[in-house]
Formats: sequence, structure tokens, C-alpha cells
Amino acid sequence: MDEIDKKIISLLQEDGRTSLSEIGQKVGLSHVSVRKRLKNLCESLVKVSASLNAEQLGSHIAIVNAEVETHKRLRELIDIFSKCPRTVFVTTTTGAYNIMTIMVAEDVDTLNAILEVCSIRALKGIRRSEAIIGEAPAVPKYLPIKIVPNKEMEIAPCGINCRKCLRYKNQKCLGCPATKYYRGPL
Amino acid sequence: MDEIDKKIISLLQEDGRTSLSEIGQKVGLSHVSVRKRLKNLCESLVKVSASLNAEQLGSHIAIVNAEVETHKRLRELIDIFSKCPRTVFVTTTTGAYNIMTIMVAEDVDTLNAILEVCSIRALKGIRRSEAIIGEAPAVPKYLPIKIVPNKEMEIAPCGINCRKCLRYKNQKCLGCPATKYYRGPL
Amino acid sequence: MDEIDKKIISLLQEDGRTSLSEIGQKVGLSHVSVRKRLKNLCESLVKVSASLNAEQLGSHIAIVNAEVETHKRLRELIDIFSKCPRTVFVTTTTGAYNIMTIMVAEDVDTLNAILEVCSIRALKGIRRSEAIIGEAPAVPKYLPIKIVPNKEMEIAPCGINCRKCLRYKNQKCLGCPATKYYRGPL
Amino acid sequence: MDEIDKKIISLLQEDGRTSLSEIGQKVGLSHVSVRKRLKNLCESLVKVSASLNAEQLGSHIAIVNAEVETHKRLRELIDIFSKCPRTVFVTTTTGAYNIMTIMVAEDVDTLNAILEVCSIRALKGIRRSEAIIGEAPAVPKYLPIKIVPNKEMEIAPCGINCRKCLRYKNQKCLGCPATKYYRGPL
Amino acid sequence: MDEIDKKIISLLQEDGRTSLSEIGQKVGLSHVSVRKRLKNLCESLVKVSASLNAEQLGSHIAIVNAEVETHKRLRELIDIFSKCPRTVFVTTTTGAYNIMTIMVAEDVDTLNAILEVCSIRALKGIRRSEAIIGEAPAVPKYLPIKIVPNKEMEIAPCGINCRKCLRYKNQKCLGCPATKYYRGPL
Amino acid sequence: MDEIDKKIISLLQEDGRTSLSEIGQKVGLSHVSVRKRLKNLCESLVKVSASLNAEQLGSHIAIVNAEVETHKRLRELIDIFSKCPRTVFVTTTTGAYNIMTIMVAEDVDTLNAILEVCSIRALKGIRRSEAIIGEAPAVPKYLPIKIVPNKEMEIAPCGINCRKCLRYKNQKCLGCPATKYYRGPL
Amino acid sequence: MDEIDKKIISLLQEDGRTSLSEIGQKVGLSHVSVRKRLKNLCESLVKVSASLNAEQLGSHIAIVNAEVETHKRLRELIDIFSKCPRTVFVTTTTGAYNIMTIMVAEDVDTLNAILEVCSIRALKGIRRSEAIIGEAPAVPKYLPIKIVPNKEMEIAPCGINCRKCLRYKNQKCLGCPATKYYRGPL
Amino acid sequence: MDEIDKKIISLLQEDGRTSLSEIGQKVGLSHVSVRKRLKNLCESLVKVSASLNAEQLGSHIAIVNAEVETHKRLRELIDIFSKCPRTVFVTTTTGAYNIMTIMVAEDVDTLNAILEVCSIRALKGIRRSEAIIGEAPAVPKYLPIKIVPNKEMEIAPCGINCRKCLRYKNQKCLGCPATKYYRGPL
Repeated sequence: MDEIDKKIISLLQEDGRTSLSEIGQKVGLSHVSVRKRLKNLCESLVKVSASLNAEQLGSHIAIVNAEVETHKRLRELIDIFSKCPRTVFVTTTTGAYNIMTIMVAEDVDTLNAILEVCSIRALKGIRRSEAIIGEAPAVPKYLPIKIVPNKEMEIAPCGINCRKCLRYKNQKCLGCPATKYYRGPL
Repeated sequence: MDEIDKKIISLLQEDGRTSLSEIGQKVGLSHVSVRKRLKNLCESLVKVSASLNAEQLGSHIAIVNAEVETHKRLRELIDIFSKCPRTVFVTTTTGAYNIMTIMVAEDVDTLNAILEVCSIRALKGIRRSEAIIGEAPAVPKYLPIKIVPNKEMEIAPCGINCRKCLRYKNQKCLGCPATKYYRGPL
Repeated sequence: MDEIDKKIISLLQEDGRTSLSEIGQKVGLSHVSVRKRLKNLCESLVKVSASLNAEQLGSHIAIVNAEVETHKRLRELIDIFSKCPRTVFVTTTTGAYNIMTIMVAEDVDTLNAILEVCSIRALKGIRRSEAIIGEAPAVPKYLPIKIVPNKEMEIAPCGINCRKCLRYKNQKCLGCPATKYYRGPL
Repeated sequence: MDEIDKKIISLLQEDGRTSLSEIGQKVGLSHVSVRKRLKNLCESLVKVSASLNAEQLGSHIAIVNAEVETHKRLRELIDIFSKCPRTVFVTTTTGAYNIMTIMVAEDVDTLNAILEVCSIRALKGIRRSEAIIGEAPAVPKYLPIKIVPNKEMEIAPCGINCRKCLRYKNQKCLGCPATKYYRGPL
Repeated sequence: MDEIDKKIISLLQEDGRTSLSEIGQKVGLSHVSVRKRLKNLCESLVKVSASLNAEQLGSHIAIVNAEVETHKRLRELIDIFSKCPRTVFVTTTTGAYNIMTIMVAEDVDTLNAILEVCSIRALKGIRRSEAIIGEAPAVPKYLPIKIVPNKEMEIAPCGINCRKCLRYKNQKCLGCPATKYYRGPL
Repeated sequence: MDEIDKKIISLLQEDGRTSLSEIGQKVGLSHVSVRKRLKNLCESLVKVSASLNAEQLGSHIAIVNAEVETHKRLRELIDIFSKCPRTVFVTTTTGAYNIMTIMVAEDVDTLNAILEVCSIRALKGIRRSEAIIGEAPAVPKYLPIKIVPNKEMEIAPCGINCRKCLRYKNQKCLGCPATKYYRGPL
Repeated sequence: MDEIDKKIISLLQEDGRTSLSEIGQKVGLSHVSVRKRLKNLCESLVKVSASLNAEQLGSHIAIVNAEVETHKRLRELIDIFSKCPRTVFVTTTTGAYNIMTIMVAEDVDTLNAILEVCSIRALKGIRRSEAIIGEAPAVPKYLPIKIVPNKEMEIAPCGINCRKCLRYKNQKCLGCPATKYYRGPL
Repeated sequence: MDEIDKKIISLLQEDGRTSLSEIGQKVGLSHVSVRKRLKNLCESLVKVSASLNAEQLGSHIAIVNAEVETHKRLRELIDIFSKCPRTVFVTTTTGAYNIMTIMVAEDVDTLNAILEVCSIRALKGIRRSEAIIGEAPAVPKYLPIKIVPNKEMEIAPCGINCRKCLRYKNQKCLGCPATKYYRGPL
């Protein structure tokens, strides 16, 4: 990244839809040069993408930490949660736990449902776990909550079947936004 | 959000630079209608924005949790960390701590420097704290690391003066990316 | 709840046996109207019920938290403890544990017996647990300790047989108040 | 309590409004004798009182544990929380903490507000604290949430002034149900 | 200790009142020789002493661990608790705490009173503490609870004045067995 | 216990070998009356017994806490440790653990050996455990360390065979004082 | 060690390659006498050896504590980690864990790899574990990192096959310095 | 480091006193070339130095972790412990603590003395700390315990005056090996 790249990125952090010509004007380049630079940047370093206002959506977050028994299971769990549309953060960590996930829920019943049924805490191969609740975060205001417009899946990406879930059946969860059972706003 | 809004958002989650006409084709609307919908969405719910590939940048993350003594101090700390260009996550939480922050560093010396000098752990008004280290997260691949192209600040947004910091002077920290003392890639 | 409903509830919180006419006088309604309102309230929102003075009974409480391995087991445990006459509080929680129960004992031997033999801590499917002791609480003075007048059960609702329990046989526990083996004041 | 007392209490646990004559029929006594017995019971051991369906109200609970520095401060805190209309449980405890409080909130914003601003965690004289969140408990279904029909207080019973509270001003809390600033359903 | 010393000690562990001649018979020595050996042993290594049956007394124990801020304060606290007639164990420790005390109470109200008012947990100069409750221990059956027959002290050896203590005044504590305010069995 | 009983016990706490006549003189009774009272006291409440000066012996203590999985296993472990000559304290507890044991070792190699091989921490049926080390305690100066003069056992009372233990074979443990393999001072 | 031995050791702590004659001059002995003394010292008490500058190598350390289920497994793990060229510290400990290991990594990817795949945390027979990260330590500047010049092993001394390890294959670990797969500076 | 450097280092890890000619023979170089290479290596990367057999010395280790309040205090403490002759490891860490020190003691009284009086746990500016004990470590067999042959200091390098220390005066500590008050083997 040279100085001009940084300016371009900074403009796109303000508004990712800024037109090439407007960027060009601000950084003193033709829109063709900007397009070229942007193409380069987006090949590996930068992604321009839509995120959703967590507070506006009434979102709550669940931070779940776990100590996973084997590294094989750890990798499996990272795979499972990477596919979940509610997951906005997954990383391996140091400390008393070796994985941290942050999940999002559109209401509090769903928050409690994912803690009880879908989170790492409820899965096999765990030595101990911890669940923490947060409000819509102060930073960032916009979270990368994945929108799945075609809700055609029968089974959620993590392998759970919402239709058979007691919480879902008791109207105590909106269901997985990737499945046809989902009844929430996403 | 109706079905078409969701499709638009979903397309912009794939690539936030997709042109209005391309979106229009895929959702079956004119580019004028798409622009109108997008304008509405971006007024409150959606933000299209650039983020940076954490792994590509060689980033590491520091998760710092703290129990803050008073709610006044808690608000002050949220303000301080919201302004920090390294901060990618701040939220109040339940559990043994009442605030969680996630910060990013471009190399390990800087990671250790922010833990020791800039993180909540090092500030006043704390009952107890905990610092956890993670790799570039599995999710999301791209983090909202703020690029500050004009590095004209003498003092970092949090109030620390890099020039007086021992770690910075000993070449054990790249400094704050918002100040003129910064010597890293951001 | 409108203002009058609240006044009615407030009066019944003072004394749940207040007569309809006395309530009517205080809220400015006929006793017929009060009865109608009360009926509505009691259909879902309000319950008028007898509780027992914990301190008077010499009660102690045991707060037991546990991290349960699976959500299926969690539901089973909630069922088991919901039926126990000593249980005055059961909820799923966040934190290091995912279930919290509060149980009541009429003397300290029984308190220790339930911790050792009947509490979640002693059951299967637990990753870790914690037991905390409290006096008769400052709030509420009256606890919803269930009175079972016909003590005809052979086996306690949780499935334990007091007659075979070492603590019970050694006179170190009063037994379960729902069974015919109970020898305490409840 | 003799057998008949227990039957009376048990009937009043089912429905605290059961008439004296109905009780009398079931226990084989005149309604005069039942009244006499009930009067005796209610002098110290029993209280008939209205509680509210926590799930129906959409209530959430916050369990806050704290280690208080001195026993003088511990008593002050018990006094403060005993007066709070949101408090449904306060007790001294053993373990890493010496006080446990359970508070109720009608929505999640208010839950977070009381954790941040009103709970023990936010007060002085604390060595360490912990906050845990629960759903409306499985047991009891009805919680002794205090209804204050005349909301004339300027300052909440705990001494906090809702009008000056940032969370309240930002519409992020319903306020204290004992004050005139309250804007929720209680 | 030679073999005969060990036999003598072993006999006195069975019954510390065994007569010299009986010991002599069992170890094959004259009672004069036994007296001489016993005198030697009691000069430094052995103490014959009366202890009390904890279960018989209805005793409960409170184990209180604390992390004391300075080693000066640590020594002061060891001194204070060494003088307390309820203290049956005090040691410095490793771990999260640096002092452990075990205290005895004749009933549960007094147990709670000492936890709240007299234990290390309630004193100054502590970073964090933890209180654990136990029954009369399985081992040893007899605890070295100090009997103070002349209860003439106005102020307890630890410096607390029972007469001014709220718990004592409210009949929620038997008081210190070394003072004239004590009203328990010791 | 009346006043005279307490005086007798107090004298025997000073020196358990005080003669009946000396006690009689001090409490104003004949030695016959003292004998009679003492006999009564020793039937249930009082035990006169020999203990050993822990500091003189160079003793160290190991405090081991464990969370045992089932109450059946908990009872087994209490039995095992009650028989161990090194055990000076065993009790069930509240908190994160449900059993606490205090064991004594004559040197530090043996202390480490019992932690590694003989303590609860090393046994089956444990969810989690914690080991803490202390010096010879400040209170009591004399510990009830059991002397076994006839060391004829092949297998230690807990079931371990010292002869097969690596630590014992490597001269890194004195062995169990109840077995013929013991090579220490007890 | 007499005074002269200590001087010799002290000189060799400054520089272990100091010649016998130079040592002799400083301690007032012939080089023959110094050789003799040094030979004696090196037979049991002293070792002169090369260590590596951890900061210079860009090393990071991983401190991993674990509670191992049985003492047999504990010994196995000590054996495994004693052979690992990255291990610079292994000891049994008291506390919540019973083994502590310190391992070294030449870069942060490798640090994370050993935490995830090779550390005790990832092995069987563990009740709970904790991983802590440190910079190159302040003391000692030079760590006993074992150099294996002939990298001929197919399987690492701990039994892991780097070639089959996902982290190694993904270029996210330098591999074990004792094997032919190693691609780092050691 | 090339292959030959590694061989040289490896030989010096076996025995740091190996002569240049012997090394030369084994690596196929003249002793002049070896000297040159060794000089280069020792300028930054390698140190040949004497360490002491911890087990032979009867050493025990104390691992003390602390959470220090400010980074200024953290640096002061690193300085203090870097100068202490008993310190064999100091590093900043992640986790619940931000500094870890490992200290060595020649006997157990001294171990307890340094925990109580000299360790970080006993100093100011600490939020919480933890002390763990270990035997002479399995790895490394030889620890870099600093030998101070001229014991002329009045005050220990950390600022403590052994002569005024109660533990030292009571013969419960050998004192600091850098001062004239030291009475142990180092």
C-alpha cells in the first residue's frame, strides 16, 4: 500500500460505493488508474462489502469460549462455525480456552436458543466452556452478518435440523437464517 | 428488508463494488430502482465499506477483557477505544468482566506493546483484567482496520504520546497508525 | 396492566387475601369489577399464592451452578429439578455454567445431604459445578417452598430413593418432603 | 404446622384466592376454623401474595455476585437492593463472592442498563464481581416483582436519578419502576 | 524417636490419659522410664491435649482463604487469628491466596456471622478472598477448639466488640467464646 | 458442659497429662469426682490424645481440593483418606470443589510424591482438582499425625504399593508410614 | 562449593569459554588446579553449555499448564516434552494444574501451531489446561534451545509426523527442528 | 547459522568447554576457523555459560504470576527481579496475569520466605497474584542461578534488607545470596 492506496481505502471505508471518478478527483488520478489500483488491492488485501447495523437490527451477541479436547476437533468446530450465518467472529486463542466465537441473534429468545442448542458450549469434545452476552457492540457499528436470500436449506449448515428443535417448535427461536424454517427479519 | 433488499445486500456482501446495473439484472429491477433501494438501505441498516485481509497483513489480535470499577469509567474507556485505529471490536459484556475489546497489531512486537502500554489492562479504574491472543481470525477474513492516510497527529487518539513511549523508542512497537510517528504498513 | 390493575396487584402483594370489596374501595370500583379484572390478570400474568417464611423455618439455601455437557441433558435436569419440592429457583444462565438452581433445606445436615446426594453437582453429564451456601435470603422473606401434604411417594420426584440413601439412614438428612420417608417439619 | 395447616397452605399454593369455605370443605373444617388457622399461619410463617409471570412480561434476569470489602458495606448494599423494585433475590453467600442479587428487567436494553449502572457491580466498595444473565426462570414461573402504582419518586430508592442517567436519556433503559420517570409496563 | 517412643506416642494417640504403668507394661519398661521418655518427648515433639468432638458439638467449619496485600499485613492477620478461640487452623499457602484459616462455629447463624464479620474476608488489606463451608470433618473427629472457662474479656482477642455487633445484637450470633458476651455452649 | 467441665477441659488443653488430683485442686473437687466427670466427658465430647509438633518434624502440608463426580465416589475417597496416616484433615466442602484433604509430609520430596501419586488429584472419578502447599501451620502447632509403630503392612491403607512406585524406588519419597517400606522418622 | 569454586563458576557464568589460565590468574591458582576443580564441579553440580539469544532469534514462548488425570500419564508427558527440542522448561507444579511446560517458537505461526497441535493442551488424559504467551523473556536472555544439526528424523521425538500435519502443509508452521521436514533457522 | 555453526553450537550444548581443536576435528575445520566462527556466534546469538544442577543443590522453584496495575510499574518490577540472584525466569505474559517470574530457593524455608517477603506477590501495585511451587525442573537439569562470590552488599539488589527481615532473623530464610547476610551454599 502506498499513500494513494491508503487514501483510496480510507475513502472506501467511509463509503464503499464512492464512484471511481469521485475517488479519482480526491486522490488526483484518472478513474482508469483508480480502477486499476482498486483491482489490485481487491485481489488480496481489501474487500469492499456490505455489513448490517447491529443496533438497528436489535442484535445481541453471544461470545462463547471453549477448551476443545483435540486439535482435530478444534478444526472441525472452526469449519462448522465458519459456515453459520450467525457467526461474526471465530478465532483460536490462548488462555483457559482455545477457541472464541461471536454469534449474533435478532432477539433474546434466539440468543438463548443458540447458547443452549447451537453454540460450541452444546457440542461434543469440549473440556470446559464459557458464554458471555453483549449488546450490539460500540465498535463496529456494522457487523458482517451473512444474508442468505434463498432460504432453501432443510438442514442448517452446522448440521442441526431446526424443525426438530424444541426451542424452535416452542416459538423460542427464529431458526437458522440459512434454512427454510427461518421466521425472522434476516 | 423485503426479498429484493436481501438479494441486493447479499450481492453486495459478495462484492460491494457490484454496479447498479449488474445488481438490477440479477434482482430484476432497473438500476434506478436499485439505486433508490440501496439509498434507503444505507440510510440506517446497511453500510458498504472496505476492510482489510488480516492474514495478508500478518495481523494478530489481542482480546482484552476488564472489570471496570464504575459505569462512568466504563463509558470513558468505550470512548477511548472507539477512537483507536487498532480497535476492531468493543462491547460491554456480562461475566467476570464488563468490557471486551479486540485490537489488531501488524507484528508481534506491536501486539506485545499494545498489551503492555495501550490496552485497557494498562489503564486506571480497573478491578481485574485478562489478555488473550489470537491469530488472524478464521471469520471474518477481512477486518475493519481503520486506515488513517494523513498521519498528522502528534498524540494518539487515546491520549498516548508514542514519542515518549519506551517500547516505541526501543523499536519494539510500530506506533499508533493515526500519528506521525507510525512506521508500519498501514 | 392499566393503573387500576397495578393498584390491585400492589394491594395483593401486600396481602393476597384482601377481599374483593376492600380492594374495590381502595381502587374505586365495585367488587364485581374487581373480580373481573382479577380473573383476567390471573389468567396469565398474575398468580396469588402462599409462600413460607424462610428464616422462620430455619431454612438455608444451596445455590448450585453447573456446566451441563449437552442441551438434551440440560433440559432433563431442568425437568428433574422443576419437580423437586426443595427447588425454589431454576434457570439457564450465561457464564462458566449453564444452569443455576437454588434449593432449600430445613436444617444444615439436610443442606449438606442435598449438596452431596441430590444436587446437580452429584449427577451425570456435568463438566464442572460449583456449590454456594446462603442464609435465608434478605429478599424475598417468603420463598415458594412447595408443601406436599400427602406424603405417599415411595421414590422422590427426582428418582432418588431416600430409604436407600446413606445420609438418610444415618439420620443426616430429613429426606425428601414429597415422600413418605420425610421426617421434617414441611 | 400440623397436617391440616399443610393442606391449607398447599391449597393456597395452588390458588391463593381460594375462599375460606372451599378450603374448609377440602380440609374438613368450618370456614371459621380455617380463618383462625390461616390468621395464625400468616402471623409469621406464611404469606399469601401476588407475583407476576416473568415469561409473560418478557422478563430477563441478571444475577450479580460481588465480593464486598467490609461487612458494613455489605449491610448497606443489602439495604439498597432490598428497596429496589427490580430485585427479586438478595442473599449473603459463601464462595468467591459474599453477596448475590437477582434483578429483573422488562427488556434487554433495561437489563444491560441495570448491569452497567444500577447493579452492585457498578458500586463502590467491591473487590470483584460477576454478572450472569438468565431467561425468565423455569422455576418459579411467577416472580415477586414489586408493583409500585404511584410513581411519584424523583429519585430511585437506591439513590440513582434516572433523569440524569445517560442510558435513560438515550432511550436505552425504561427507568426505575418506582419513579415518575419510568416508561415501561410495570 | 526410637521404636519405643513411637509405641508410647501411639498408645497416647489412642488415649492420652493412659497411665504410665499401663504404658510401661505394653512397651516393656518401668513406669519411671516411661515418665522420663515422655518428659523428653513432651519437651518439643509431642503434646498431649484435649480436643472436642466436632460433630457432637454440632460444629460447622468455615474455610477462608485470602490474598493479603503485604507480608506485614499477612503476619498481623496470622497473629489475630492465632488468638481467636474459634480458629483451628491457620497457615500461609501457595496458590491464588496466601493465607488459609479454618474456623469453627457451634451453629449456622454463628457460622454466617463469623464469615460476615470476623473472618479474614471482612478485614482490610485483602486483594481477594474466598469462603468455603464444611461439615464437622471426617478427619479429625476431635478438633482443637480452645475452651476459655473464664469469660471475662470485654473485647474479643481479635479486637472486635461483640456488644456493638449487629449480628450479635439481633441474636444472629452466639458471640466470641472468649468474652463475657458469649451465650453458647463452649 | 458446665463451668467445672470447661475448667477441666481447659486444663487438659494446656497439658493432657495433668493428674486428677492437680485438676481437682484447681477446680475444687476431689480426684474421684474429677475422674467421674472426665469419664463422662470422654465418652462422647472430649478426647485426650497425643499430637506431634509439625515444625519440629520439618513437616510440610499439602491441601488438595477436588470436585468428585458422584457422591458414591466421594464417600469412597473419604474412606480411603481417613485411613491414610498422613491425612490430618478431610471434609466435604462447598465451592468449586466438594472435598478438601490436608496431608502431611516429613520432607519436600515426599510432599511432591504424595501430590503426584497418592493425593486425590491423582485418583479416578475427579472432575477437577487443586493442590496448595503450606508450611507447618501457625495454628495448631501440634498436628494429629498418626504414628504406626508396627510397620508390617505390605500395601498402604489406601491400596498403593510403595515398592512398585517409581518415586519410592528413585529415593524421591519416604514411603507410607504404615508400611514396612517406610524409611522416614515417623 | 568453597569460595574459589564460586569464583570459578561466577567467571564461567560471565563467559563459559574463559581459558583455564585466565581463570587461574583471577582466582590465584595454577591452570592445573583450576582444571581439577572444574572437573569436580562438572561431575555433578555445574554444566558449561551454549544457549541461544531468544530475542535475537525472534523467539516467542508458550507457557502451557495442564491438569493431568493420572500420575502415570503425567510421567509420560514429562518424558515426551523432555525430548522435544522446543521445550525449555518442564516441571510438575502445585495449583490448579500439575505440569507446566515452556516451549519456544521461532515465529508466531509456529507458536500458534505448537499450541494447537503439539502442546500438552492438545493431548489426551488432560482434565483442563491453559496456554499463555510471552515475549522473549527478560531473564534469561539466552535460552537452552536444543540445536539438532543432523535433521534425519522422519517422526518428531514426541511422535508427531510433521508431514501429515495440516498446519505444516499449509506453511503455517516451520516444523519440528529435530526432523528432516524442518524449514526454519535452527 | 549455517550447518557448521549448528554443529558447533550442538557440541557446545553437550559440553561448553570442548576445545577448539576438538570441535574443529568434528566439524572438519581448523581451530582458527572454529575460533572465528565462535567469536561471531558469541557476539549476538550464542552464549556459553555455567549453570547449576538444580536437583543436586536441593533447589525448589517458585513460579509467581501477577497482574500489575500500570505498565510503568510492570517495567520497574522486571528491573527489580532481573537483578535478583534467585530469579531464573522473568517474562511479560498474556492471560489473567501480565508478569511471570520463576525464582529458586535452596531449601523450603527459604522458598516460603521468598514467597512471603521477596516475591512480586508481596509488592505494591498488584491487582492479583498467584504462587505455584515446583520441584527442581525435569527440563532443564541445570538452571542459570547467578553465583555472587563477593558477598559485600548490605542491601539486596531488590532493595530489601535481610537483616531487618523477621524470617531471616528467625532462621527461617538463608537470606539473599548477593548480600553479606547470606548463610547458604551459593
